[in-house]
Amino acid sequence: AKQKILLLPGDGIGPEIMEQAVRIIDWLKAKRGLEVELSEDVVGGASLAKYDVPIRDEVIAKAKAADAVLFGSVGDPAWKDVPFDRRPEVAILRLRKELNLYANLRPAKLFDPLLSASALKPDVVRGLDLMIVRETVGGVYFGEPRGIETLPDGTKRGVNTEVYTTAEIERVARVAFDLARLRSGRVCSVEKGNVMESGLLWREVVTDLHKREYSDVTLTHMLADNCAMQLVRDPRQFDVMVTGNLFGDLLSDLASMLTGSLGMLPSATLGTPEGTDKQAALYEPIHGSAPDIAGKGIANPLAQILSLAMMLRYSLDRGADSELIERAVSNVLASGLRTADIAAAGESRVSTAEMGEAVLKELQKL
Amino acid sequence: AKQKILLLPGDGIGPEIMEQAVRIIDWLKAKRGLEVELSEDVVGGASLAKYDVPIRDEVIAKAKAADAVLFGSVGDPAWKDVPFDRRPEVAILRLRKELNLYANLRPAKLFDPLLSASALKPDVVRGLDLMIVRETVGGVYFGEPRGIETLPDGTKRGVNTEVYTTAEIERVARVAFDLARLRSGRVCSVEKGNVMESGLLWREVVTDLHKREYSDVTLTHMLADNCAMQLVRDPRQFDVMVTGNLFGDLLSDLASMLTGSLGMLPSATLGTPEGTDKQAALYEPIHGSAPDIAGKGIANPLAQILSLAMMLRYSLDRGADSELIERAVSNVLASGLRTADIAAAGESRVSTAEMGEAVLKELQKL
Ligand SMILES: CC(C)[C@H](C(=O)O)[C@@H](O)C(=O)O
Ligand SMILES: CC(C)[C@H](C(=O)O)[C@@H](O)C(=O)O
Repeated sequence: AKQKILLLPGDGIGPEIMEQAVRIIDWLKAKRGLEVELSEDVVGGASLAKYDVPIRDEVIAKAKAADAVLFGSVGDPAWKDVPFDRRPEVAILRLRKELNLYANLRPAKLFDPLLSASALKPDVVRGLDLMIVRETVGGVYFGEPRGIETLPDGTKRGVNTEVYTTAEIERVARVAFDLARLRSGRVCSVEKGNVMESGLLWREVVTDLHKREYSDVTLTHMLADNCAMQLVRDPRQFDVMVTGNLFGDLLSDLASMLTGSLGMLPSATLGTPEGTDKQAALYEPIHGSAPDIAGKGIANPLAQILSLAMMLRYSLDRGADSELIERAVSNVLASGLRTADIAAAGESRVSTAEMGEAVLKELQKL
Repeated sequence: AKQKILLLPGDGIGPEIMEQAVRIIDWLKAKRGLEVELSEDVVGGASLAKYDVPIRDEVIAKAKAADAVLFGSVGDPAWKDVPFDRRPEVAILRLRKELNLYANLRPAKLFDPLLSASALKPDVVRGLDLMIVRETVGGVYFGEPRGIETLPDGTKRGVNTEVYTTAEIERVARVAFDLARLRSGRVCSVEKGNVMESGLLWREVVTDLHKREYSDVTLTHMLADNCAMQLVRDPRQFDVMVTGNLFGDLLSDLASMLTGSLGMLPSATLGTPEGTDKQAALYEPIHGSAPDIAGKGIANPLAQILSLAMMLRYSLDRGADSELIERAVSNVLASGLRTADIAAAGESRVSTAEMGEAVLKELQKL
């Protein structure tokens, strides 16, 4: 049977960049014997507009049934005044939660031809290649109680709850340790255990698991505030990092910005839906929906295309196709092609479609 | 009556750098007619060693009675295995809470002679001068319930609670708006309101206050993950920023590291103890206790000395003395003197005491 891929382009630049990824899928079907069944649906603001909810249960069901989800991005200022549980972001949060996608792998890799696009000095970031493993179904994103209550005097009180259990920490730490074995053998675990008990437990659980099963890996611990500094001061000290949902959100965005090429960075979120033993996976660019440039045809499609490459490798067992795409992207960059986000001052810029076209042309040559 | 200053050097490099600040105080007493009464006490690991608690009630009482507290830093790996409520960090957390020091002013200012010490390209950070106003007595640092519980199956669950009320948000936002009026007239408020209700309330309250009382100031809002990126991409877009306790912890450390001169940056934490209308204030370097270099006599005393300068201006009404110190520090830097943390490769380095001495010499000349 053909493998099933669900495409969820979402909001903002999502549809534009997804279109370029689909061109590549079509080419792989025509030329490389890729057999997949694509279906597409709307999420986020697009779904609010059409169905009055950020994501339909039907879409969740489709995502569960698929072999992999290729996601664009959600978030749309047009919906900023909707009630909290109807905001566009609920789409990605529900997908992560209901598919139990607990480990978000976020590489921050510097592409050498883009060195000049980084705000950091070349010597600080040259060759940077780190991987943040972020927990994505727990922590303050999902903890109860939560909400805004009105106090007797008419003022308000907003509450969220950070919760982590031993089991939640262990399973994501395992992903980090396993990854480290394939890389440099080093993991840095990040929390704020000097202030938060949930962070203290995080450190304890990671330490215990390391002692029991991963003593071949080098484990260090770092406080989140210090980590934010160290990422700027000397990011190459890190290889694999593992942290909770909220710290991971900030630190992975920070790390990816160090590379100067946010528009290039893919991510994978992996897990196992409760009650099954099948691996579920969602692939998405690290960048957001970028509403300021949406519809202009100038967004960089490479993060979406490289997310497809990750999907081919990790979910569809098509390592060769994955490599082919990565090589094509590399060559296109080396040839000097730049979308606006990665162009240096004075460099000429190509459109979203032109960049997609260039990758296709390169694939045909390889 | 003489004004009362409480010195709390704390752990790690705290005592070494405090010593240099005290030399300056002594000089101001001898030569500039400063009349203050100094007292000193121990906190953090030093207090644990002597009194078995991170801070004594007596010290809290002294701090309340003082006109200002000059603080070094706390945190000591020797005490990393004590129970959570006895860790050295409790000293600073209790001081903030019990003196109700709710607004932590953290400048990230680039000292031009130190441009080369930054990891960022000179064009990205030249002239950087932003101010983060961080809430410091609320949020997940203090919210209840909190703790680690053991589950029926023997595994554990760590919980912390993020709480913000209208009143807590308003008073710290007011500090930011007032500051902006003295600076560029711009405030950026940072939260994660697309995921956390407490962040949504934060945004609402800041927006309302702005509309009611500060419409002359330009207010923008930014999500915390995007803010971490923007601080790296283009930090000079910011002037005054205001955010909660946890985001402020990460973002202000990140911002200060952009300057390449963490060892130079002072901070002030201001508030009004409950039941009084007196202003309380604590001044401390932004950097931590740096246990790795403690006792070596190589720490940079300038953040501590500039914290003293802030105290002279904001708590002791000695603006002229404050300026004198700032000018002396500036001249010393311009003359090329460097402690290890701000020295470029190949530059020669002076000790903590030599740096203090140089500032004193410079003061004598001015
Ligand atoms: C869109 C938003 C809910 C999401 C998050 O905060 O997790 C995004 O910032 C991300 O990092 O994927
Ligand atoms: C020492 C620690 C408790 C403290 C904090 O997290 O607030 C420190 O990092 C700071 O920023 O002043």
